[in-house]
Amino acid sequence: MKLTILGCYSATPRVSTHTTSQVLEINNHMFLIDCGEGTQVELRRHKIKFNRIKHIFISHLHGDHFFGLVGLISTFRLLTRETDLHIYGPKGIKEVITLQMKLADSWTNYNLIFHELSSDSSELIFEDALVEVYTIPLEHRVYTNGYLFKEKEGERKLNIGAALDANIDKAYYNKLKQGFDVKNEDGETIKNRLVTSKGDKPKSYAFCSDTVYKEDIIPVIKDVDVLYHESTFLDKHAHLAPKTKHSTAKQAASIAKHANAKTLILGHYSSRYDNLEDFRTEAKTVFENVKLAKDGKSFDF
Amino acid sequence: MKLTILGCYSATPRVSTHTTSQVLEINNHMFLIDCGEGTQVELRRHKIKFNRIKHIFISHLHGDHFFGLVGLISTFRLLTRETDLHIYGPKGIKEVITLQMKLADSWTNYNLIFHELSSDSSELIFEDALVEVYTIPLEHRVYTNGYLFKEKEGERKLNIGAALDANIDKAYYNKLKQGFDVKNEDGETIKNRLVTSKGDKPKSYAFCSDTVYKEDIIPVIKDVDVLYHESTFLDKHAHLAPKTKHSTAKQAASIAKHANAKTLILGHYSSRYDNLEDFRTEAKTVFENVKLAKDGKSFDF
Repeated sequence: MKLTILGCYSATPRVSTHTTSQVLEINNHMFLIDCGEGTQVELRRHKIKFNRIKHIFISHLHGDHFFGLVGLISTFRLLTRETDLHIYGPKGIKEVITLQMKLADSWTNYNLIFHELSSDSSELIFEDALVEVYTIPLEHRVYTNGYLFKEKEGERKLNIGAALDANIDKAYYNKLKQGFDVKNEDGETIKNRLVTSKGDKPKSYAFCSDTVYKEDIIPVIKDVDVLYHESTFLDKHAHLAPKTKHSTAKQAASIAKHANAKTLILGHYSSRYDNLEDFRTEAKTVFENVKLAKDGKSFDF
Repeated sequence: MKLTILGCYSATPRVSTHTTSQVLEINNHMFLIDCGEGTQVELRRHKIKFNRIKHIFISHLHGDHFFGLVGLISTFRLLTRETDLHIYGPKGIKEVITLQMKLADSWTNYNLIFHELSSDSSELIFEDALVEVYTIPLEHRVYTNGYLFKEKEGERKLNIGAALDANIDKAYYNKLKQGFDVKNEDGETIKNRLVTSKGDKPKSYAFCSDTVYKEDIIPVIKDVDVLYHESTFLDKHAHLAPKTKHSTAKQAASIAKHANAKTLILGHYSSRYDNLEDFRTEAKTVFENVKLAKDGKSFDF
């Protein structure tokens, strides 16, 4: 998995900071998560191929998380995209996007498929052979979901030397990776575990922004490998967090700790702070493995 | 008058080029004309004070001319703006902006006043003591207006030395600037023209984007000082202009010539062209005084 932060600041885009958007590469998918104003330019800056994006997940309909969506959809149209585009987001997202297409008399030549969300419980919203995506109901000033991306149990690793020694035809290699016993060229059954080993442990990523401190999400994201949790405020402004339905760095760390996450990435910083290291310092008093999101930064895990 | 080009490219924002937006300073006004995605960042980059913008003129509801508007309105709100904001644009603009405020449950704390346009004839849409603004009906794929900004006949210039010599009390200086004869301290009537001279010639600016070649606009913009006219294409792609309802550089020059404009500024370039000088070269075959818009460039006139 590779996570690229296109923007990780709250409220408004500025000359050198961008509002929320990130790209998660997981198996062969390129998932776009949130889409603040200017996201299409950041995608270009980071040379992310537009056509690889087939699924966009929008957490909520505040501008710093979705004002770039209509422009991206429009640019895809101008570039004569043909690939289907799936958009997951709160109820209302379809109306606001289609109204703008109607006013511009500019309809997409590709299929635009909206998956509108309104449940207050976590639900499976995407699944294929390799990946599952679940919502993480958050609590913010408007209806908001985080998203949990989970690799499925992967294929077994083929020990090619052992398979050759066992005289197995290459045509059976995929069967072996899928865990089956196969017959070799001499007609003997070869036990799968003799020529394969356990595949990579499936990874998971949870995106949680924007939200007040909410322990209800802990069972949903339990044992997640990487948790991105908003930390709009430092402790000195903790009184603002419940009022604005945001979290502090320490609260993000507390969620990471109780969910037994392996890594916590902080982001969605208020622009009032100059030194982001303070977020790390405060979070580390609660949870050890803290990383800071930064516009343009990539995380491989 | 000072015109600052924030963006002058068509279709989509890119890393180093921006879609249409410009700021016209005229007398004490700071008019924002069109508002493509990312305009708020360009305003910040050029250190244009947000609070000085009280009037925004949107030509049409294609994304490259208005997708930045909702973000700008939202940022004004976050910055706790109190000043009224007037928005002029095609019918529908109010619905799409208010729908987004409703979905975000984020209403402005300042007055947002929409002036929706639907006339096919030029109309006076703004007037104060110093400036008038008229629509310029254009012809594009959707309902579109250009805008004509005209200074009113200015005050007369006071010759202070002459006024002192004539023994006129300072209290009458404004009357003199307004063209009246006044009485001096000795009770004598002083003819206005003895102590004043003609003020600066009022200037005018016409913004025409997007439009197919349309001679109907010529009487509306007759004798304009500065004409910004879109030139999406060069002559080699002239066949695309009527189809997409855009103009070529030569067509823009032809409008400038027939309208007896003093200066023509070209812009709204298609991104297919690398060398903008070709636009100037082609336009100059028809009209002499051609300037090229460029993102970040200012014109004083």
